[in-house]
Amino acid sequence: MAQDEPAPKPTVLVAGAGAIGGFYAAVLARQGCDVDVIMRSDHELVSARGITIDSATLGDLSFRPRQVLRSAAECRMPPDYLLVCTKVLGSLDPVAMIRPAVGSHTVIVLIQNGVEIERPYTEAFPDNELLSSLAFVAVSRVAPGEVRHKAYGHLVLGSFPSGVSEAARRLAAMFEAGGINCTLSDDVVTARWEKCVWNAAFNPASVCGGGLDTAAMLASEEGEAIIRRAMNEVCATAAACGHPQREGLIDDHIAGTRRMPPYKTSMALDFEYGREMEVEAILGNVVRAARREQVSAPTLETLYGLLQMIGAARDAGAGRG
Amino acid sequence: MAQDEPAPKPTVLVAGAGAIGGFYAAVLARQGCDVDVIMRSDHELVSARGITIDSATLGDLSFRPRQVLRSAAECRMPPDYLLVCTKVLGSLDPVAMIRPAVGSHTVIVLIQNGVEIERPYTEAFPDNELLSSLAFVAVSRVAPGEVRHKAYGHLVLGSFPSGVSEAARRLAAMFEAGGINCTLSDDVVTARWEKCVWNAAFNPASVCGGGLDTAAMLASEEGEAIIRRAMNEVCATAAACGHPQREGLIDDHIAGTRRMPPYKTSMALDFEYGREMEVEAILGNVVRAARREQVSAPTLETLYGLLQMIGAARDAGAGRG
Repeated sequence: MAQDEPAPKPTVLVAGAGAIGGFYAAVLARQGCDVDVIMRSDHELVSARGITIDSATLGDLSFRPRQVLRSAAECRMPPDYLLVCTKVLGSLDPVAMIRPAVGSHTVIVLIQNGVEIERPYTEAFPDNELLSSLAFVAVSRVAPGEVRHKAYGHLVLGSFPSGVSEAARRLAAMFEAGGINCTLSDDVVTARWEKCVWNAAFNPASVCGGGLDTAAMLASEEGEAIIRRAMNEVCATAAACGHPQREGLIDDHIAGTRRMPPYKTSMALDFEYGREMEVEAILGNVVRAARREQVSAPTLETLYGLLQMIGAARDAGAGRG
Repeated sequence: MAQDEPAPKPTVLVAGAGAIGGFYAAVLARQGCDVDVIMRSDHELVSARGITIDSATLGDLSFRPRQVLRSAAECRMPPDYLLVCTKVLGSLDPVAMIRPAVGSHTVIVLIQNGVEIERPYTEAFPDNELLSSLAFVAVSRVAPGEVRHKAYGHLVLGSFPSGVSEAARRLAAMFEAGGINCTLSDDVVTARWEKCVWNAAFNPASVCGGGLDTAAMLASEEGEAIIRRAMNEVCATAAACGHPQREGLIDDHIAGTRRMPPYKTSMALDFEYGREMEVEAILGNVVRAARREQVSAPTLETLYGLLQMIGAARDAGAGRG
């Protein structure tokens, strides 16, 4: 009988199978999906041995992708779901990166930080379904082909620009079955802004002084005041863009941060390790939205200017070396 | 005949005979003044050997102070001029530092950075004459008791809060005779704000990212824009305090900075070497003046908040160590 026959599992291609991509790829692989990955680094190693994943909550998630591709051009069969899990960086052209692997039926899923990051996809693939998702997860690449999942894992997922499609429900169900709490949101853009209220304030500030942790940023009244001012400016910008944030969000963000042990933001870690930072997705897009909507955002403007200075210093340093 | 008899040279005590204090002390000593110094560090060495000063423009200025004091309490005869040349730091109580050496005739001379730094002196020594001065000099301590003067040396000097007293003229004449260009200003507070327009913008920004040079800060449009915004806010604050700045000052500051080879500000160097920074004199006092005068200064507020965060991170680091 039809209801006893399991539906065939969808095929999945993960672009950017680093820590986050590798982790969620593993969850889907354990659910029986055929999972291919595109990896720029660690390609040989992962082809030979797969990805080793040690999860604090889900145990050993190590798996062997069906195929390990160097680029989307090597993809012979467009997948049902194409998960884009790279950082959002100026040096990466997301459309070029995935174009050869996008078929007419392919659902593109962004699991990335930032706001207003969807446009390149809607412009390049106007006929493909697009899901937008936020990951709340503490995961890191500890060695080539080795990922450690330390905590959390929650996803917020919805159709872009709004709604919850059947494809979104199906993907969420697979994540849930794999032990990942996955909240379906019919207004994922507002959820993106909500996360960005935290990110656009704490991430840039944390790079100043060479890498500050959350405790240092909240230790002084003056420090907390500018975090709050930055958050207020993000909220005002979100509201002007049609995505008003709930009352009390800023207090909750501050209180929640105080409850956690001091930690460094992803941007502070990227800075310390000399890696490219997600400046534009997390802050630049907010600043540009504020300018477009004529929202006053002097705190964000200042942080953005400082990050440009830091970038220029890095470029000059790289030029010297 | 009286006019052939040289007037006796004034006695001078220099509090904080570091690089700047040592340099200007040497100039006055070469003019025949009896110069005593208060030194917290390098006391033994300087007592034994004097201060070695190699000047790019004035040659060998090495000299032996008449007395090397550990503190003002050791001063037996209040000087005619008491030059305060320390950095303006939260950890230093300037009044306590000099009180035992201030006689009724003593003229107190501040050769320091920042704005609104005079009040502790006018409150503690209301009957003493106070001169306020700005040094434009590139000088550094290269070893204990050893100072290198690399360039410049110009002083701006005036009575506080305004005017040019006879004592100011006399001191300026001695500096001029010693090869130091010394501009007498009957509005030295406005001159202080003018220098602070540069300092309050570039110094705090330069600490971000772990220490930026002037080229990195001006490399991007966004970077230059926040430097200009910060400078505009200092100008607006100065004007509200009754010290309007001249038209074109900001353009001149930016153009002048671009003409020089890239360099790190004093605050960036203090940050890098783990030394206390002059945050309050250079920025905190401007921010407080803006609040008092109800001038909008969001760029300066942001920079100030970031410097508080950086200070907190350092304190936490020191606590760990």
